[in-house]
Amino acid sequence: MSIQPKTRLYVDSPLGEGQAVGLDPERAHFLRHVLRLDKGNVVAVFNGRDGEWLAAIDGFGKGWCSLTVTEQRRLQAAGPDLWLLFAPIKRGRIDFVAEKASELGVSRLWPVFTRRTDPNRVNTDRLLANAIEAAEQSERLTVPEMADPLPLDKALAGWPAERTLYLCAEAGNVRPIAEAVRARPRGPAAFLIGPEGGFAQSELDEICKLPFVVPVGLGPRILRADTAVVAALACWQALAGDWTADGGDTRPPFRAPADPTVGE
Amino acid sequence: MSIQPKTRLYVDSPLGEGQAVGLDPERAHFLRHVLRLDKGNVVAVFNGRDGEWLAAIDGFGKGWCSLTVTEQRRLQAAGPDLWLLFAPIKRGRIDFVAEKASELGVSRLWPVFTRRTDPNRVNTDRLLANAIEAAEQSERLTVPEMADPLPLDKALAGWPAERTLYLCAEAGNVRPIAEAVRARPRGPAAFLIGPEGGFAQSELDEICKLPFVVPVGLGPRILRADTAVVAALACWQALAGDWTADGGDTRPPFRAPADPTVGE
Repeated sequence: MSIQPKTRLYVDSPLGEGQAVGLDPERAHFLRHVLRLDKGNVVAVFNGRDGEWLAAIDGFGKGWCSLTVTEQRRLQAAGPDLWLLFAPIKRGRIDFVAEKASELGVSRLWPVFTRRTDPNRVNTDRLLANAIEAAEQSERLTVPEMADPLPLDKALAGWPAERTLYLCAEAGNVRPIAEAVRARPRGPAAFLIGPEGGFAQSELDEICKLPFVVPVGLGPRILRADTAVVAALACWQALAGDWTADGGDTRPPFRAPADPTVGE
Repeated sequence: MSIQPKTRLYVDSPLGEGQAVGLDPERAHFLRHVLRLDKGNVVAVFNGRDGEWLAAIDGFGKGWCSLTVTEQRRLQAAGPDLWLLFAPIKRGRIDFVAEKASELGVSRLWPVFTRRTDPNRVNTDRLLANAIEAAEQSERLTVPEMADPLPLDKALAGWPAERTLYLCAEAGNVRPIAEAVRARPRGPAAFLIGPEGGFAQSELDEICKLPFVVPVGLGPRILRADTAVVAALACWQALAGDWTADGGDTRPPFRAPADPTVGE
């Protein structure tokens, strides 16, 4: 019977047997005062490079916690090569986008400003924190990269030709998503989701001219931007990503105990 | 050039040319004081039975607004026959489930209590209000039916044999969702999503013995219950529902102006 870790944390330090890991004050507080863990308790840690390891708590101090890495639980594995380009939307909903995209295995989160994007700033630190928390809970071995926010045309100017960019179109005569994804060769992919107000028509015309862009339809109802993100990513994962047979790790996953700080 | 309605409302009254429609105080307030509409302005209305109509505002009073129905915009059409059975979860997340399920075309929302369901009550009025608001915004011609909450075993006891119940399994050796959905004949479907703590093993064993149950996998990461709802419904719609070619209304949809009361 293997040890059941009390929680799962993303850390920055290298991981290997006997390695010491220090936690930041926020994590130290979380382990000590929220989860009420103590010296000797075991947690799981991952850093996106060295797989997942068990680590035992050595001790706590004022604003710190030190761990010693003991044994490896999972080898590092690459996740899907899937980017999400999204126009910033209102606060609650954009937090949700970062959380859900991370759970759904996105490798890069990229805020882009379209002509009708309403907020003209975006707090990438907060979005990354949401994405990391979701990665910890969802058993990912990586966390999404947060790309620097750019105007959409700048983001598309240096686009790698081999990466399909699926454009979630609000309406019009476009190919249904399942059909479009199945028609493309497997390979690097990205989704572009517009702002709540939609793309400007001239902007849409320009995007659709790009050779790597494939417009896809998400059915006859109008979806909110945050719904479209989850729906589109799930369809891609189910048809071309790691939800297909043998796509992912088949070990029974570790489930963290209920976390009192999560949710509303 | 056709008239662009200022918003879209679900109403209970019969709809037909010349029909008078009264709005409740909340809707009347919304039109008058939030959207700042006036006598003569036109809105779209639907009731789930008679299609979608334009209606002109006749006047406002203290807590009321009366409309006269003018012309039909869309004929009534049946939506997908898709139920969602879900274990109640925390407040913010369950509101989200009702909203997203409605956007994704669910015909019946059915809260069920599993052994590990945490909240033991559920506010179906609030969930229905969220579902109706999402239906208004998403261009649905129907609103989801809200079934009476039941313990899961009671809900399954009278199950119609021809309706496939897809069980979103957290882990284990189950068929990936795309494969499982494609292997079933098209027809009435339902999804069952467990609580945040998962199903009890004995409960899961019992459910899986039922002849209409098909367990499906949603990839190698652990999804939160609310993420699993959106992901599973989107995959079904894309593969077997009205997101497939010619599944839905192909008219360019009406987009309501930005609604200041929506969102956080």
